[in-house]
Amino acid sequence: MDNSFGTIFKITSFGESHGKLIGIIIDGVPAGLDFNLELIQKELNMRRPGQSNLTTSRNEEDKVKVLSGIFNKKTTGAPICLTIENKDINSLPYEKFKKFLRPSHADYTALIKFGGNSDYRGSGRFSGRVTAGFVIAGAVAKQILQKCNITILAYTKSIGDILDEKDYTLYDYKELIDLREKSLIRALDSEKSKLMEQLIIKVKNQKDSIGGSIKCIVKNFPEGKGGPVFNGLESIISKAIFSIPAIKGIEFGAGFKSAQMKGSEHNDPWVIKDGKVQTMKNDAGGIIGGISTGMPIEFTVVVKPPSSIGISQKTVNIETNKNVEIEFSGRHDPCIAPRVIPVVEAMTAVVLLDCLLIEGFIPKVFKS
Amino acid sequence: MDNSFGTIFKITSFGESHGKLIGIIIDGVPAGLDFNLELIQKELNMRRPGQSNLTTSRNEEDKVKVLSGIFNKKTTGAPICLTIENKDINSLPYEKFKKFLRPSHADYTALIKFGGNSDYRGSGRFSGRVTAGFVIAGAVAKQILQKCNITILAYTKSIGDILDEKDYTLYDYKELIDLREKSLIRALDSEKSKLMEQLIIKVKNQKDSIGGSIKCIVKNFPEGKGGPVFNGLESIISKAIFSIPAIKGIEFGAGFKSAQMKGSEHNDPWVIKDGKVQTMKNDAGGIIGGISTGMPIEFTVVVKPPSSIGISQKTVNIETNKNVEIEFSGRHDPCIAPRVIPVVEAMTAVVLLDCLLIEGFIPKVFKS
Amino acid sequence: MDNSFGTIFKITSFGESHGKLIGIIIDGVPAGLDFNLELIQKELNMRRPGQSNLTTSRNEEDKVKVLSGIFNKKTTGAPICLTIENKDINSLPYEKFKKFLRPSHADYTALIKFGGNSDYRGSGRFSGRVTAGFVIAGAVAKQILQKCNITILAYTKSIGDILDEKDYTLYDYKELIDLREKSLIRALDSEKSKLMEQLIIKVKNQKDSIGGSIKCIVKNFPEGKGGPVFNGLESIISKAIFSIPAIKGIEFGAGFKSAQMKGSEHNDPWVIKDGKVQTMKNDAGGIIGGISTGMPIEFTVVVKPPSSIGISQKTVNIETNKNVEIEFSGRHDPCIAPRVIPVVEAMTAVVLLDCLLIEGFIPKVFKS
Amino acid sequence: MDNSFGTIFKITSFGESHGKLIGIIIDGVPAGLDFNLELIQKELNMRRPGQSNLTTSRNEEDKVKVLSGIFNKKTTGAPICLTIENKDINSLPYEKFKKFLRPSHADYTALIKFGGNSDYRGSGRFSGRVTAGFVIAGAVAKQILQKCNITILAYTKSIGDILDEKDYTLYDYKELIDLREKSLIRALDSEKSKLMEQLIIKVKNQKDSIGGSIKCIVKNFPEGKGGPVFNGLESIISKAIFSIPAIKGIEFGAGFKSAQMKGSEHNDPWVIKDGKVQTMKNDAGGIIGGISTGMPIEFTVVVKPPSSIGISQKTVNIETNKNVEIEFSGRHDPCIAPRVIPVVEAMTAVVLLDCLLIEGFIPKVFKS
Repeated sequence: MDNSFGTIFKITSFGESHGKLIGIIIDGVPAGLDFNLELIQKELNMRRPGQSNLTTSRNEEDKVKVLSGIFNKKTTGAPICLTIENKDINSLPYEKFKKFLRPSHADYTALIKFGGNSDYRGSGRFSGRVTAGFVIAGAVAKQILQKCNITILAYTKSIGDILDEKDYTLYDYKELIDLREKSLIRALDSEKSKLMEQLIIKVKNQKDSIGGSIKCIVKNFPEGKGGPVFNGLESIISKAIFSIPAIKGIEFGAGFKSAQMKGSEHNDPWVIKDGKVQTMKNDAGGIIGGISTGMPIEFTVVVKPPSSIGISQKTVNIETNKNVEIEFSGRHDPCIAPRVIPVVEAMTAVVLLDCLLIEGFIPKVFKS
Repeated sequence: MDNSFGTIFKITSFGESHGKLIGIIIDGVPAGLDFNLELIQKELNMRRPGQSNLTTSRNEEDKVKVLSGIFNKKTTGAPICLTIENKDINSLPYEKFKKFLRPSHADYTALIKFGGNSDYRGSGRFSGRVTAGFVIAGAVAKQILQKCNITILAYTKSIGDILDEKDYTLYDYKELIDLREKSLIRALDSEKSKLMEQLIIKVKNQKDSIGGSIKCIVKNFPEGKGGPVFNGLESIISKAIFSIPAIKGIEFGAGFKSAQMKGSEHNDPWVIKDGKVQTMKNDAGGIIGGISTGMPIEFTVVVKPPSSIGISQKTVNIETNKNVEIEFSGRHDPCIAPRVIPVVEAMTAVVLLDCLLIEGFIPKVFKS
Repeated sequence: MDNSFGTIFKITSFGESHGKLIGIIIDGVPAGLDFNLELIQKELNMRRPGQSNLTTSRNEEDKVKVLSGIFNKKTTGAPICLTIENKDINSLPYEKFKKFLRPSHADYTALIKFGGNSDYRGSGRFSGRVTAGFVIAGAVAKQILQKCNITILAYTKSIGDILDEKDYTLYDYKELIDLREKSLIRALDSEKSKLMEQLIIKVKNQKDSIGGSIKCIVKNFPEGKGGPVFNGLESIISKAIFSIPAIKGIEFGAGFKSAQMKGSEHNDPWVIKDGKVQTMKNDAGGIIGGISTGMPIEFTVVVKPPSSIGISQKTVNIETNKNVEIEFSGRHDPCIAPRVIPVVEAMTAVVLLDCLLIEGFIPKVFKS
Repeated sequence: MDNSFGTIFKITSFGESHGKLIGIIIDGVPAGLDFNLELIQKELNMRRPGQSNLTTSRNEEDKVKVLSGIFNKKTTGAPICLTIENKDINSLPYEKFKKFLRPSHADYTALIKFGGNSDYRGSGRFSGRVTAGFVIAGAVAKQILQKCNITILAYTKSIGDILDEKDYTLYDYKELIDLREKSLIRALDSEKSKLMEQLIIKVKNQKDSIGGSIKCIVKNFPEGKGGPVFNGLESIISKAIFSIPAIKGIEFGAGFKSAQMKGSEHNDPWVIKDGKVQTMKNDAGGIIGGISTGMPIEFTVVVKPPSSIGISQKTVNIETNKNVEIEFSGRHDPCIAPRVIPVVEAMTAVVLLDCLLIEGFIPKVFKS
């Protein structure tokens, strides 16, 4: 029921998939920053539906519009309200299937929680479309972080059983961006990318869907931020990331592999390198005791296969309380991971900027 | 830097590993509940060091003491302050090794964050001992939840490569408790338990340590609780769980396996069973759209191998800024997963009770 | 910098006086309530500029518009975004006087805080116009409270030295509403009302302004709500009320008179009346130990005279850093207290509804 | 029910008047500060009962004790737990009068809220004694603020009808401290102080009590802090101040007098003085638009007469539900205002330090 996130850099989400618009309010942005709508639009375009034949056929321009908080092309310190309109709406299938619970969709939980009053059209508030607002806020946060040289990059690590296990930690941010831009599904390895695309198309032709995983690398996050006990970096990052629909797991550094490791393998030895205390490897994912080590923050998230599929499924008719088998139509993505990537980057940017502000780390740009 | 957790049921942690005591303040407990110190003590004993030859040799009685909030053996509605003393303290090794950064310990991040002023003895605030306070709070939360028939059970799912993949969802809570009590390391399968114990002893003899994973099952949590967007159940549970040192990953339901699954496999079909809407399987882990489905909430966490090992390690002498190789002595656990189990249950209880209270779900016991 | 208020019933304010619009997001409204735009409009009309010759000549229709959260004329449980447009804008005077600090306006503090980047037109975010959003949120909260029989009524207690000291505690809510509707300036005593109006007109003709005070009476608020220590009712009400520009003081019950009273005078004797524990008088203002007594909650606030006056004033030219004397033109209210009344009611409704929800008091209407 | 206060500098209160102890946890104190127990003790002594014949005869040493967070006489960055014991306890009168509701005490509201389970001895959690914890936290906050040259001074402005209206804004902090130390009841004017003392003794001999008011002056608080809308300085200060039992009103600057003022009188003209933008007078109390102007922050609070009096009073026997008349015995203060002064300073320090930290204003002392 809580649609606000953050303490100092705070965002508030509103809007529904088939309502008038999707919106976000960004509070806590310092005054006097140049406000670059194009950079926001660019991020939104990465998440936009209809961007290729690998995504849903719903076609939205997702043009961002300013309602408040900007004056003379600069931030004013006031809350910034930004929206995108919903235009390519087809609510008919939802009307028709209102009485059938779509498996692994929020139809049933929404029914119980909101007593049948929620806007079910296009899944309403539960639609991934709501995350367009996160992307807008993240684009603002990322611009501020980048002025402090902090970069955030996420990429498709796996689709189905096609897995890219290469370690990209030492790659330059720009290199990674370049690699990613060559791939329709935002993978870094061009060979793997092709295999992943083929798998998605195959699954799409089967009217089925497929899961995947996303890796996120944050570089140059200052050391000594975050903290022990209840607001460690893993705590706040995971809270932010699980705001994204379809994410069902997160691991930092070596993550689930750690279960099978010995201490002598898992421990990251400290070393003086370039006159700086670093670790020789980064199985800790850049976080020890909830605090940043100065090494890249690295985490991987799993994205479940989209629940919307065209194959016939068993479910319940909620009006008759009978078990049934039914085919659901509608437009959907065969694999959502590539479109989730800008959202993962966005929520990471939002939560890390908020963390820095709470700790009194004031980016220089705030002072000018 | 934040040592408080929760909105209505709120806990505040204090104390250091080798200071006078470890404490917790529990706020938001309704007045008039019988206060059962023995049940708290029982939970603490599960976490207590020195409980067997598989744990650290530090031997603490961990006897819980009431400082405030209880009157005539009942809760008063006032904040309850509970403490355990630190008695078996040996700070000597920490004094000696103060200048060497222990690999994968918080020595360096603490140094940066607190400028060399933190209480390093026994890792101070970063010690797992701080979680004894969580266990105390969790014991209180669990008692309240159990009166609403909500049970929380965690068990050792794997140690190293010994993995118990059996599905215990349909087991009765009491059955699970009984199975677990037979195992020194809190596994449910007696055969696997023996193998795990043997592995721990082997690793201990190598002066090394080993990781593991813990599964947690919450039964009878009411459906329709939690919510979309920023406080979904995965968000709040993961935030709570990552407060526990050594946890590096969490997954709900099918979790990371979802990355390789098709929608037609992953989707949980709805079915009317016993006159109730349920799912035929539970790959969603009891949560869809951030909201409870009424199925058990199931998640798995990974516990890294303890960073304290007796084997010689590469690291840095922080006084001379030189790379060195050194053996660290001291008392430590070869595998911490079994002792983390009550802590996982505790933080789960704390966060779920708080969630219910925020949603205005008032356990009957609060009314009497 | 914080534009959100509340814990469960949470509002987020955005928009500027001379920007596109003023808006509010209301989160935490239960699903399934009939959404009555007319009742909201009625409250807004009480605050609307240009409503009589006693107010500013800026004429705004303030027609409220729904952007999200409503479906089939009912609340959905999703955040409700509501806006009013700014139409009758004349930013010219602000442009002209940009370099002169208006006495007792936020020009200087905004300059320091936002470094000259804030939207100064019509005082931007500091304008009383921002409180139109509060009134919208309050209208929603009041409707919910009224279904629980809780009423909130504020009235003009004094303008300048014209003071209505009559005790209206025993009057019926509808009687009070009727009395108030007869008065242009929302006083209850018709004689006093005329005198107050005459005073406002006199002051207006002098190009000056005048202060006043507002009394607020909350009836049927359930006893035993609120609490000791940090979130007592006085604490949360005062925090809410001071969100309103121009308010410079608040007192509960006997308030500042208590300084001169003896305990034997101030103490409210308990008495059984109509089978119920009550107090014989209400110098406590319905709150003891931060908790509601079941008697009406009564408080008075002081509203400073509008800082915008037409008389020549001493001030500083911020560009030359010279002391000057200057006349400021522009449209403004000679006395703002009557237009602040719906805002006081609104913030009281918002904070008290949130308080009830935090305490798990679920209005019956939420269940249906 | 909320016993924690603050966002970054956060305090958590626990303990009861006649329980083992009163305690406070202070979180968010930077590491590496010298921890001066004597300065804390000095503040506590100002609040201590039994300090003169003008206060209650309960005699408590109130010796502060460190439970956590301090190492090598410095702060560590960990939560600091500090306590004072309750020693001079006489719970007998409370036992005897348990069935009679003391007028204007929290007996009835506590009964409703906590269902008869609260610790009634010495008013338990509702006792002013709980504020000893606030004083401890305030002493820590004040030390940090003073290193930034920010001083907070409160004094007795009135007792009954003896009122000191002199404007002390231009006095030096040390001068004010010196004046105050000469007065048993913490007034600044020695003549008025004597009259006030005489009044208190007269009232005490009548077994009655008397109210008063306290003025608080904060100097050198940086300009441009706080903010419009929901966390303006008046909002956060008033929330903090109403945490103190017996406070029933607060006004900033000209406060309630503003109701009778014209804009031309109330407006504070800006002026360049000593090369700095200032106001010629300070009717705004140092706050405009919720933001500090750089002038002293000035506010006055009213302290009601203690509810505990020895005179016979009308009330209710809660066991028989009958109206009765009864004399309450017990030890109490004839006038509490002088002992509330350190508490007002403490809560002001706590909330203003938190405000500065939220705004990223990092006192230099935090860096060293």
